[in-house]
Amino acid sequence: VKVNGEPRRTIQLAADGWTVEIIDQTRLPAELALVRLASVAEVARAIRDMLVRGAPLIGAAAGYGMALAARSDPSDEALAAAAALLAAARPTAVNLVWGVDQVRAAIAALAPPARAAAAYRRAAEICEQDVAACRAIGAHGLGLLTRAADARRDRAAPLQVLTHCNAGWLATVDWGTALAPVYRGHHQGLPLHVWVDETRPRQQGLLTAWELGHEGVPHTLVADVAAASLMRRGLVDLVIVGTDRTTAGGDVLNKIGTYPVALAAREHGVPFYVAAPGASIDWTRERGDDVIIEERSPDEVTHLRGVRLAPPGTGARNPAFDVTPARLVTALITERGVCPASRDGLGALYPENVNVKRP
Amino acid sequence: VKVNGEPRRTIQLAADGWTVEIIDQTRLPAELALVRLASVAEVARAIRDMLVRGAPLIGAAAGYGMALAARSDPSDEALAAAAALLAAARPTAVNLVWGVDQVRAAIAALAPPARAAAAYRRAAEICEQDVAACRAIGAHGLGLLTRAADARRDRAAPLQVLTHCNAGWLATVDWGTALAPVYRGHHQGLPLHVWVDETRPRQQGLLTAWELGHEGVPHTLVADVAAASLMRRGLVDLVIVGTDRTTAGGDVLNKIGTYPVALAAREHGVPFYVAAPGASIDWTRERGDDVIIEERSPDEVTHLRGVRLAPPGTGARNPAFDVTPARLVTALITERGVCPASRDGLGALYPENVNVKRP
Repeated sequence: VKVNGEPRRTIQLAADGWTVEIIDQTRLPAELALVRLASVAEVARAIRDMLVRGAPLIGAAAGYGMALAARSDPSDEALAAAAALLAAARPTAVNLVWGVDQVRAAIAALAPPARAAAAYRRAAEICEQDVAACRAIGAHGLGLLTRAADARRDRAAPLQVLTHCNAGWLATVDWGTALAPVYRGHHQGLPLHVWVDETRPRQQGLLTAWELGHEGVPHTLVADVAAASLMRRGLVDLVIVGTDRTTAGGDVLNKIGTYPVALAAREHGVPFYVAAPGASIDWTRERGDDVIIEERSPDEVTHLRGVRLAPPGTGARNPAFDVTPARLVTALITERGVCPASRDGLGALYPENVNVKRP
Repeated sequence: VKVNGEPRRTIQLAADGWTVEIIDQTRLPAELALVRLASVAEVARAIRDMLVRGAPLIGAAAGYGMALAARSDPSDEALAAAAALLAAARPTAVNLVWGVDQVRAAIAALAPPARAAAAYRRAAEICEQDVAACRAIGAHGLGLLTRAADARRDRAAPLQVLTHCNAGWLATVDWGTALAPVYRGHHQGLPLHVWVDETRPRQQGLLTAWELGHEGVPHTLVADVAAASLMRRGLVDLVIVGTDRTTAGGDVLNKIGTYPVALAAREHGVPFYVAAPGASIDWTRERGDDVIIEERSPDEVTHLRGVRLAPPGTGARNPAFDVTPARLVTALITERGVCPASRDGLGALYPENVNVKRP
C-alpha cells in the first residue's frame, strides 16, 4: 500500500540497513507512528504488546527478530535463547514459531560469522513470500466474491461482506489475508460494502475501518453482538476472516468472537470463508480444541485506554482466540487455491505437509 | 435492596411527596448519583438518555411521568401530549406504553381535578406490582437453578450462570428479573457464579457486575464475544436474560447480543431462560421480526465516553435490540410460573390476554 503517498510495508528494514521499522499499531487509528526495533528483545516486546499483530506479520517480525539476534550474537546458545524469547511472546499464532524456525534452519549449518547476513536474507524472503501469498489469496478469494455477487438478485447493489478483527494489510506484510480479495475486488470495480466487527476487547475492527477508509472501500462499524442480527435481516452475503492457526483437520483458531459469527452464519446460510496462508496451518495438530488459547490480561476487559470501567472487585477472563470447528467453515482460501476445511482438502493443496507427524 | 445501609428502590417519590427520585444509571458504576424529575419532559428525557433503563423500570417511570403530567395539567389534551412524548422516548420496550396506558385508564373517567392523585396512586401500584412480579420470578427461577445444580456431577462446585445486559434490580423497581433467581439462590446459600457479558456498546454488564458485587455474588466480566467459547469449554450451566418485549408467540426482543448467546447455548445444549414479567409480553404481536427495533446513535459505537475512537469517515450502525426466536428459548420465567416460549405456553398462564386482537 501507499501511506502518505509513499510505498510502505508493515515491517521493513530501516535506512540504516539493519534496524527494523514497524508501524506501532497500538497507536492506530489515531496516529501513524513508526518505531525502530534494534534487538530481539525489542521485537519480542513489540509482539507481546501488540505493536505488531496479525499472524502473518508476527511471523515476519519473528524472522527479523532472529536476524537481529544473529547480528548481536550468532552463537548456538544465543540463538536458542532468542528463539525461546520470541516463542514465549504470544502462544497461539503458529506463524511465530514458523518464522523463528525458518531463520534458524537457514543459518544452522553456517559458521557463526556468516549467520547474520543469511538470517537477514531469510527474514526478507519470509516477507516477500507473505506478500506473494496474500496476493494469491486475493486472486483466489476474488473468485468467490465475484460468484457471490453474480448469484444475487440485485446485481447493482453492493456485495455485503462481514469481517471480524483485522486481517488486512496491517496484519500481514502487505495486502492482508481476509481483506486481500476485498481490495482486489474494489480496485477492479466490484461494488462492495464491508461490515466491520468492532472486535472487543482490543477493537482491532478500528484498524480494519482505518485500512478500508484509507483505500476508499465503503464500510460500516458495528458492535460484535450486532453481526448475527445483520445476518438475520439478510444484510450479509458472506463472511471472510483470517486465522492465527488452522489445524490439519481444518479447525480455525482466530480472534475471540469468530466462533459466534460462524454459528450465526451457518444459522442463516451465509458462506463463512477463512483466508489461511500455508504458514498459518498447523500440520501437527488435528483438532483446534487441543491448542492452548492465549489468555490475555483482564485489564483489556475491565479497562479502556488505561481507565478502569469495571467496579472495584470485579475480575475478568480474557481469552484472545476461539476455535471455529471445521464443519462451520464453508472453505479455506489459501495461496494455492480454495479448499474444503478438512485434512483431505488441505492435503490436496499441500501434499508435502500432510504427513507431518503429530508431536 | 439496601444502598449505603438504606433501603432504596430505583425509582421512588422524593421526600416532597411529588417529585420522582431516580438513580442516574449513566453514572454507574463510577458513582451512585440521585436525580429528581419534576415534569413529564424530564421523565421522557431520562428514559431516552437511559438515566433509567430496563423494561420494567421504564414502565414504572412512564407511570410516574403521567402522574407528573396530570399534576401539571390534567386536561385530556395535555395528557394525550404527555403520553405521546413518553411513548416516543424509546420504541422497543412494551412496558413503556403499558405504563402510560395503565395510568391513563385509571384516570380517564375522573374529573380533571381528581386525576393527579389517582395517577400517583396508580403509578405507585405499578411499582408495587413490579416488585411483587420480580419476587415471584425469583421464586420460580430458583426452582430451575436448584434443579440444574442438582443435575450436575460436582454438586460442590458453583452453578455457572451466564447473563447478558442488565436485568437486575437496576432494570426494575427492585430485585430484577433475570437476576432475581440468582439473588434468591445466593441468599439461600446455593453456590453460584455469574459470567457477566460486558454488553457492548453501552456496557450494561458493568451495571450487572456492580449489582452482583454489591450483593456479594461471585462473578466475572467477559467480552460478549467470549460467551460462546465459555459454553464450548463446558463452563456455563445455564443462561438467564431479561426481555424488553416478548411476543405472544414467544419470540424474545432483548438487548442486542442476546440472539448470538441463544445460538451458542443451543449449539452446546445449555438451557436458555428468559425472565419475562407479564407486563413485558406483547399480546398484539405473534412474531418478533414484526417489531420495530430501536436504532440508537452511531456515536455509541464510534465513541467511548465522549471520545471518538473510530477513524474519521467511518460510520456505524447501532441496533439496540435483537430477536431471539421462540425455538431457541428453553422456557420463559414469568411471575405466574415457568412456561414454554409459545402462544400455548403463555396462554395457559395468562388466559385473560391470549385473545387480544392484533392491531
